[in-house]
Amino acid sequence: MSTIADVARQAGVSVSTISNVLNGRIERMSRETLERVQTAIAALDYRPNRAARQLKTGHTPMLGLLVPSIANPMYGYIAREVETAAQERFEHRVVLGNTYRNQAKEVGFFDDLLAHGVRGVIVISSLIDERHFEHAVQRGLVMVSYDRRATPGAASAIDHVSVDNHEAARLAAAHLIERGHRELAFVTASGVTMSRSEKIRGFRAAAEAAGLAAHARVIDGSTSSEYGDSEMADVGRRLAARIAAERPRPTGLVAVNDMLAYGLLAGLREAGLSVPGDVSVIGMDGLFLSALMSPALTTVRLPVPAMAQTIVERVIGRMADPGIAPGEFLFTPELERRDSVAAPPATRSGT
Amino acid sequence: MSTIADVARQAGVSVSTISNVLNGRIERMSRETLERVQTAIAALDYRPNRAARQLKTGHTPMLGLLVPSIANPMYGYIAREVETAAQERFEHRVVLGNTYRNQAKEVGFFDDLLAHGVRGVIVISSLIDERHFEHAVQRGLVMVSYDRRATPGAASAIDHVSVDNHEAARLAAAHLIERGHRELAFVTASGVTMSRSEKIRGFRAAAEAAGLAAHARVIDGSTSSEYGDSEMADVGRRLAARIAAERPRPTGLVAVNDMLAYGLLAGLREAGLSVPGDVSVIGMDGLFLSALMSPALTTVRLPVPAMAQTIVERVIGRMADPGIAPGEFLFTPELERRDSVAAPPATRSGT
Repeated sequence: MSTIADVARQAGVSVSTISNVLNGRIERMSRETLERVQTAIAALDYRPNRAARQLKTGHTPMLGLLVPSIANPMYGYIAREVETAAQERFEHRVVLGNTYRNQAKEVGFFDDLLAHGVRGVIVISSLIDERHFEHAVQRGLVMVSYDRRATPGAASAIDHVSVDNHEAARLAAAHLIERGHRELAFVTASGVTMSRSEKIRGFRAAAEAAGLAAHARVIDGSTSSEYGDSEMADVGRRLAARIAAERPRPTGLVAVNDMLAYGLLAGLREAGLSVPGDVSVIGMDGLFLSALMSPALTTVRLPVPAMAQTIVERVIGRMADPGIAPGEFLFTPELERRDSVAAPPATRSGT
Repeated sequence: MSTIADVARQAGVSVSTISNVLNGRIERMSRETLERVQTAIAALDYRPNRAARQLKTGHTPMLGLLVPSIANPMYGYIAREVETAAQERFEHRVVLGNTYRNQAKEVGFFDDLLAHGVRGVIVISSLIDERHFEHAVQRGLVMVSYDRRATPGAASAIDHVSVDNHEAARLAAAHLIERGHRELAFVTASGVTMSRSEKIRGFRAAAEAAGLAAHARVIDGSTSSEYGDSEMADVGRRLAARIAAERPRPTGLVAVNDMLAYGLLAGLREAGLSVPGDVSVIGMDGLFLSALMSPALTTVRLPVPAMAQTIVERVIGRMADPGIAPGEFLFTPELERRDSVAAPPATRSGT
């Protein structure tokens, strides 16, 4: 059985450096040192005594992770990256909760974490109202929120890790415009979340920059429930029929996420329209499934693994050192070109 | 704040009945009583005192859930149903672990659960060797295994909840044979799991029953990793190219799961083959995503919500009453007909 001293010797660092790594205090550590310590831990198969650590750090080595629904492949993807980072880098386990975007369920989850001595929680919510988060923080939780920005101008006790949603939708719309599309639509589920509002603004910004503000519509449809697995695809499928009937029909569609885009592809096919022959579709998220669609879906990819690392580092780091101030971490999305975007039919027949 | 007596009064049952429900002792309870109690709990928004319950039942109200990878939509789907049942029916939280089908990771997860006082664990593994499970049970865990049968003839300390995999593959192959297919292939990832072996046997049984044993191949391809998200689709995609080149080319393909089938659809398209015009494809799992594929994927659907209820009832019930013997629970799959299966080209041109 290896001891912490063995690990320190192997890595050529002090015992307190190892302890810092184990307890997530890696803010001021060089990447090179961190990697050396992680290599030594792995090589010696070092497993710190959990009870002793809990005594020392005063918290259970667990994190909470709240998602609208883990059946949604995007949240499953994020959850895998978060759990693996928590487990492999920090020996923390993850308590999972499905909230179906229900505020009461979120509050109940926070209560239970506190009752279990869990102090760190990662929240994927997108609910506009964030007051129950701040309340949970006052009661002792260290919180990182994914996929929503801090409320502008308001001081927050929460870390916010998100992709630049404005930029994601702007990129998508700009790509369609560059391919010649002049009738654009942003397709989404009705109901306002902060990330959706930002995407709509980014979509409109691209249209305005191209002088197409009057030709950029938002088309939305209601969901029976709001948590976004099959429901999100269902919305896309139903809206596709409506879009097919619109005159003038938009030729370039930006979907609020990949899942809704899958529904659009299926619905447009059912309506007798070809993608990208008649209509171009672009998604947002970058799920691996998008490459398997027919046609393979052009999408805006979120850097999920990097975001997950930051999420876990922040929650672990701030549990270890309450002096670290919460911050906002914005990641840049990237366009992933595949086969669902082409020039619009009018352009092609006219040239 | 409602008390347990308030709930008993509202439901018209004794306090000990409420306690039985809260502690998962519902084996001998009528469905009607259970529903009345659940309705009363919901109506009064009753939340039992967690610390008092833990004192009484001697365990932390948490369950462990081990999956190969939560990014796989099938495991995400099961995890959602399990977590929701644990939370809503039994007020238990779920600790999630990704194992990437690695036995050392499974053992590490069991260690941590025991260290945290968690006594119930649900395992989705499919590793052939189950001895580390039995060892964890000896150390105090109550375990339910999903998607593998008990080892025939061996006494087990573990509940096994699974679909009848033999029947699932038999149904799929029989459906292809009924549509006129004579050259069949079962397409899978190499590497043996118990569920895969059963599926292969079921596939062969259907072929033999139709006198087609000599025309029923197993085609497999290796994965870079074994946990089955995009990797599984990648295998299908690569194997599609190989299948397209085979002579005689199989016209009816049974995929080991929906994810591999998605890869087949994409790969066959890339090889210039039409589904179902040239080749029919049938999946297994029944993911909601299958309805969105092009063509919509015919599949064999697993009754996931019912299986998840049984999984959670068993683990909670056996934690409460160690006298309950472990058992095997086999669920029946159902064929879901969509658009990826048609008569083979030879039959159609010949009739």
